[in-house]
Amino acid sequence: MAIEIIGIDGDDTLWHSEGHFHVTEQAYVELLAPWVDAETASSALLESERRNLAVFGYGVKGFTLSMIETALTLTEHRIDGIHIERIISLGKELLTHPVELLDGVAETIDVLGRDHRLVLITKGDLFHQESKVAASGVSDLFERIEIVAEKDTPTYSRVLEAMGSDPDGFCMIGNSVRSDIAPVLELGGAGVHVPYHVTWAVEHAELDPSHPRLARVTEIRQAPSAIAALEGVR
Amino acid sequence: MAIEIIGIDGDDTLWHSEGHFHVTEQAYVELLAPWVDAETASSALLESERRNLAVFGYGVKGFTLSMIETALTLTEHRIDGIHIERIISLGKELLTHPVELLDGVAETIDVLGRDHRLVLITKGDLFHQESKVAASGVSDLFERIEIVAEKDTPTYSRVLEAMGSDPDGFCMIGNSVRSDIAPVLELGGAGVHVPYHVTWAVEHAELDPSHPRLARVTEIRQAPSAIAALEGVR
Repeated sequence: MAIEIIGIDGDDTLWHSEGHFHVTEQAYVELLAPWVDAETASSALLESERRNLAVFGYGVKGFTLSMIETALTLTEHRIDGIHIERIISLGKELLTHPVELLDGVAETIDVLGRDHRLVLITKGDLFHQESKVAASGVSDLFERIEIVAEKDTPTYSRVLEAMGSDPDGFCMIGNSVRSDIAPVLELGGAGVHVPYHVTWAVEHAELDPSHPRLARVTEIRQAPSAIAALEGVR
Repeated sequence: MAIEIIGIDGDDTLWHSEGHFHVTEQAYVELLAPWVDAETASSALLESERRNLAVFGYGVKGFTLSMIETALTLTEHRIDGIHIERIISLGKELLTHPVELLDGVAETIDVLGRDHRLVLITKGDLFHQESKVAASGVSDLFERIEIVAEKDTPTYSRVLEAMGSDPDGFCMIGNSVRSDIAPVLELGGAGVHVPYHVTWAVEHAELDPSHPRLARVTEIRQAPSAIAALEGVR
């Protein structure tokens, strides 16, 4: 079955993101070392992120507020103002971090765009994602840019409807099983999973590896041949 | 000249927003009363908001981070953890505040939609704006919903291009001269200014009141007749 439209994820598929979050979290954990051990800090932060997702949504600003909230709870409000200010700085550093494309991204998008319509589908803070898209230098290679609040089946259906297509001829490339792959397979589309070396625990999900419309590759350079192989499968 | 498409702003045009920010700011200023007077707190907060706009963009999460940052600076880091936690709570209350439509909104959208294509154009946090659009109960009356990071001439051009139209036949209704009216007039479109009782200082802008494609009304119910009058003007 021919793939007409290819969707590509932004964070951790086109450019590094979770790696930067991980570095920030390490700095945060060290900052809290006078009060709590690293494991306690990390797991409390994750719990706070999960709890706040329904109020904050995704993105660095919500993450920063969760870091502050967690620090207050874990230190029983004893953390001082200098440390709180340092946490805000960690958030600002994440927001202004230069965009670094993953290896092989530019050439692969170029190859994929020769025979397919391309859409970039990324989630998070609108302002930060727009900055990253602009700084990536690859946005002109896409027919459409979609910055969305959640990557679920209604979102993918809406994007495909806006592009005048349906899931049969759609393939999504991304690092998150939960956000990039599972909802697209559920709609009847195809998926190419390119794992990133770190996965945010909230994005963790299981998937049947034998799904006929799923390919797994180790780097994005392998996506074009994986998609060609998927096109041979009905 | 006929108006084909009418754009309508969200915050402070369809539903209350700045009024809630104002209440939050009053609570914030009282919280800082042991350290600084109200005027000092308000003006320092505004300065922090302006400075952080380039990093945070618009919306409540950035506002909350600016409140914390300002509190740390104004108290020379002496503010305690309980007060910081209270500031985060103020931000969460703003994010979860029920959506309250302004008077006459639902009936006016209904009237405008009979002879025009309608687009809701609102800026801020994607996640929060989507929640507000969903909770407003009026989103089905719009052909299109656009949540944008900045309301400037490129944004309006992009929206009109996506709708297959041009600025000549476009009229924007909104409370902000800077975001809703000035860029649309600059493109050659028309504007109906409906001031809200509070204006965020960052949104303040001057405008020539004699502009031939500008109408000013005191409530949104007057927008249909104002647009009819604008249609008689070339």
